Amino acid sequence: MTTIAVIPGDGIGPEVIEPALDVLDALGLGARTDVLDHVNADTYLRTGTALTGADLDRIRSSEAALLGAVGDPRLSDTAYVRGVLTTLRLELDLYVNYRPARLWHDRLSPLRDPARRAIDCVIVRENTEGLYSGIGGGTRTGTPQEIAIDVDLSTRQGVSRVLEFAFSVARRSVCLVDKANAVRNGGQLWQRCWSEAVARHPHVETSHLYVDTAALRLATDPTAFDVIVTNNSYGDILSDLTAALAGGLGVAASANLNPVTGQALFEPVHGSAPDIAGTGTANPFGAILSVALLAEHLGRTEEADAVRRAVAAAVAAGRVTPDLGGSLSTKEVGTVVLTELRRP
Amino acid sequence: MTTIAVIPGDGIGPEVIEPALDVLDALGLGARTDVLDHVNADTYLRTGTALTGADLDRIRSSEAALLGAVGDPRLSDTAYVRGVLTTLRLELDLYVNYRPARLWHDRLSPLRDPARRAIDCVIVRENTEGLYSGIGGGTRTGTPQEIAIDVDLSTRQGVSRVLEFAFSVARRSVCLVDKANAVRNGGQLWQRCWSEAVARHPHVETSHLYVDTAALRLATDPTAFDVIVTNNSYGDILSDLTAALAGGLGVAASANLNPVTGQALFEPVHGSAPDIAGTGTANPFGAILSVALLAEHLGRTEEADAVRRAVAAAVAAGRVTPDLGGSLSTKEVGTVVLTELRRP
Ligand SMILES: CC(C)[C@H](C(=O)O)[C@@H](O)C(=O)O
Ligand SMILES: CC(C)[C@H](C(=O)O)[C@@H](O)C(=O)O
Repeated sequence: MTTIAVIPGDGIGPEVIEPALDVLDALGLGARTDVLDHVNADTYLRTGTALTGADLDRIRSSEAALLGAVGDPRLSDTAYVRGVLTTLRLELDLYVNYRPARLWHDRLSPLRDPARRAIDCVIVRENTEGLYSGIGGGTRTGTPQEIAIDVDLSTRQGVSRVLEFAFSVARRSVCLVDKANAVRNGGQLWQRCWSEAVARHPHVETSHLYVDTAALRLATDPTAFDVIVTNNSYGDILSDLTAALAGGLGVAASANLNPVTGQALFEPVHGSAPDIAGTGTANPFGAILSVALLAEHLGRTEEADAVRRAVAAAVAAGRVTPDLGGSLSTKEVGTVVLTELRRP
Repeated sequence: MTTIAVIPGDGIGPEVIEPALDVLDALGLGARTDVLDHVNADTYLRTGTALTGADLDRIRSSEAALLGAVGDPRLSDTAYVRGVLTTLRLELDLYVNYRPARLWHDRLSPLRDPARRAIDCVIVRENTEGLYSGIGGGTRTGTPQEIAIDVDLSTRQGVSRVLEFAFSVARRSVCLVDKANAVRNGGQLWQRCWSEAVARHPHVETSHLYVDTAALRLATDPTAFDVIVTNNSYGDILSDLTAALAGGLGVAASANLNPVTGQALFEPVHGSAPDIAGTGTANPFGAILSVALLAEHLGRTEEADAVRRAVAAAVAAGRVTPDLGGSLSTKEVGTVVLTELRRP
């Protein structure tokens, strides 16, 4: 039987996971859930570890994992949030961070020109190396001569595999984003792997942009893009930008994937949002759309599309949480989506 | 006598420098220009160096420098463009890249919500270290085990001085942008220098954002920002984003400054744009507004404001180049600005 590990996490995490699990249930995928609700800030504060080896084993032996959000005002983002997310990404070698951005309704776009609003692109972010490699250090700390370095790591294996994935999901085109003119060593490695990948996929339209230009183009005409493939840092930044162009973090879903082993972790892009936790106003779409990505991962494309249609219908009807201009609660939005899903 | 070194450069560089120099002349700053029109791609192709020690001496002995653009399709961006810009930035230790973004007319905003269009912020980008340090290398190149690294360098001296500058130009607030949760070593150094800078300026409103969140916020409500201070890489990306929100690269001006020695280089943010070079359609506002920054640097605030008013008037009248929706040529726009400047 298919098992899905579920980590509700902190803050609004458990609040958005609840309707997401209802949706998962309604899809009738015949999956059982293995809920790890102790993976959270309280556990970390009590024991010093949020994610034990045993937790990782449970996640590893599942077909997929679904995470709400981690983060707590009592804890530093570095030690805790980053700890949990990085451990999951690195331990499971989830080398692809797949972040689609699609405009569910014209109303949600921040852009003025109607012809440029319909963003429908995917950021394929390298998820295990780059500037988030964790390599680096400091010296003369606390003196006026203090120096700190962080290493932006690129490996041929790491770059080739994420480029290959990007081509595998392209519908129209793949755009490589880097800063090879200024960040030369990794830049050149990416460029060489890119030339090889382009040669392997002669029928896919390709382009290349420096990251500064990519940010500018996205902000003015995101409809020009299909798949954007880039490193960990630029993918982090550009995927928040595309989320903004698609209606905000409330609607942004993501998948952390290892397409070779099949390991996968799905999560809304938003954090634990302690400022609104407990108010019942968190937008569950990010989590619900993460369930759509999960269904797709399990080969259930029709079910995934049904979830997306249900979300689009809820948005079109204005049956949404306050961040999208509505007045419904998290639970109410969940009910709307379920009702839409059950419509024949 | 005040001397201004002028490097027209390549492509549209000389085309936008011409009206910019007319504006400079009209301001009556009593400055003489020292034009280095051999600093360009042809020279590089012939001699292998675009910028000699003698050129640097001429620039160094000037009160300020004005650059059009460098870049040529026959040359790699890495070796040539980056070569010229980095040499200037590093040799003159121009540690601040000052990039204001102001909406000259409501019409130029790509944003839908009228209340959020009036961007008027400055990116203060660290300009001599960070990920563009040039440190790094590769090993096992050409094999499947290839690894490349680029070093993101932060020094206490480098970070403190750019933070100090950011506070010195704040009108309302300063926002630090970093990714201290994931890029830890430099992140912590920036955070410590930031705490000290904040303590030194108790009357300035301050905030902190991770770079992904900053991109998202800028794209939805840029009016929330005054001064954003950040590292070389994030400043590069975010300043193209703010340029997009202010009407595009055509209107973006910048100053590379060393506030201690007084050395300064002014340049439009756009490149040499080989695709439109020679068509007479290049937008001269980036270069003209760089002259405004230059005038300000020389203590001529009134003249700087006059240039900005003239540009705003030209934009309001729709007397602009095609990139801004007009039909005037580079030269014609230059004439419009001059006429506006001479209006009593
Ligand atoms: C919390 C942070 C370290 C994380 C990241 O950048 O990897 C988050 O921003 C994300 O995008 O998943
Ligand atoms: C050409 C490039 C190296 C340069 C930079 O990023 O420094 C440019 O993009 C800029 O922003 O001035």
